[in-house]
Amino acid sequence: MAGRFISLEGGEGVGKSTQLKRLAEALRGRGLEVVETREPGGSPGAEAIRSLLLQGEEDRWTAGAEALLFAAARADHVAKTIKPALADGKWVLSDRFLDSSIAYQGGAGGVGASVIRQLHQVGSGGFLPDRTLLLELPGRAAADRARERDGGGGDRIGSRAEDYHSEVASAFRLIAEEEPHRFRIVDASGAAEQVTQRLLAALEDLL
Amino acid sequence: MAGRFISLEGGEGVGKSTQLKRLAEALRGRGLEVVETREPGGSPGAEAIRSLLLQGEEDRWTAGAEALLFAAARADHVAKTIKPALADGKWVLSDRFLDSSIAYQGGAGGVGASVIRQLHQVGSGGFLPDRTLLLELPGRAAADRARERDGGGGDRIGSRAEDYHSEVASAFRLIAEEEPHRFRIVDASGAAEQVTQRLLAALEDLL
Repeated sequence: MAGRFISLEGGEGVGKSTQLKRLAEALRGRGLEVVETREPGGSPGAEAIRSLLLQGEEDRWTAGAEALLFAAARADHVAKTIKPALADGKWVLSDRFLDSSIAYQGGAGGVGASVIRQLHQVGSGGFLPDRTLLLELPGRAAADRARERDGGGGDRIGSRAEDYHSEVASAFRLIAEEEPHRFRIVDASGAAEQVTQRLLAALEDLL
Repeated sequence: MAGRFISLEGGEGVGKSTQLKRLAEALRGRGLEVVETREPGGSPGAEAIRSLLLQGEEDRWTAGAEALLFAAARADHVAKTIKPALADGKWVLSDRFLDSSIAYQGGAGGVGASVIRQLHQVGSGGFLPDRTLLLELPGRAAADRARERDGGGGDRIGSRAEDYHSEVASAFRLIAEEEPHRFRIVDASGAAEQVTQRLLAALEDLL
């Protein structure tokens, strides 16, 4: 059976990391080999770039430099981790991928969605997930959970203002609506077990 | 008097570093404030990216990732070092700039010259030097000097094969011929003092 590449997307605090682990376990329970990964990072080169991206002041990098660094990290992640695993017939679950760059660096103050896609073409030949699961929490709930978890601290991206969180949620929804075949929007509210069942249902046609 | 941005280009062993220092001194002798810099690097962020680029195995990065990293480093160099110095009325001399990326990553095995220019547009808004001085040694002499200096060791780029050096020299000449207004091709053979005089002469219209 061929491997599949699945990305989980959504704003901070929607439960991506928890659900990624739960989904991986559920897929393993069906006899699949599953690789869990994340962005930025997911390969030694990309993790080194991640350190450059997430450390230091918020304005350490210009918007253009940041977009280029994310695309370089993604290129390494695709070449060194994702494609080799798929070639081995494994499923790859990634906590964030291209769509996070579009949602975070593609909007206001960033370089624009078309530039992000152009850089992804250069770095990774435009490689896309077989399915992208967009986790959504109704309204403000996501922003609240992110603030609680970070305790007022957190890294450069996690500590951005609250308005930003709802802008990001809107940005993700717009991207999802452009590619209905690749995306499934999944309600992330309720018990973890329920959410995992919704995610599995959103992959049923690939299993 | 307005600042000027001058890049020195050419293959390994043509004497760029030595001549950059000599040229900077000569310009200071004319009362100019001069900043000496280099690529990849030239600002704290770009130097961190330089470390990622030059360490490790030759195939550590895919051609796409390498091109993206060079463009990110250049974006930081332009924003944090070059433009602020020019705004202060200083002259900036850089040992390598965009044209090195075109010559080294734009050719065979790389991503192509048009992609390198596209990435430079994203990172640095297409910012170009007021003058680019291309140092050339006749034929094989450059390759010989590079081998001698590196003593068989050197970094990833310096240790590439000899054929590569003459391909690089041809690539630089093609780029120069496309932009005759920006470029001056300068004979790098003979005594250091003579070469510096030739470089100064190639800047006379900007002084």
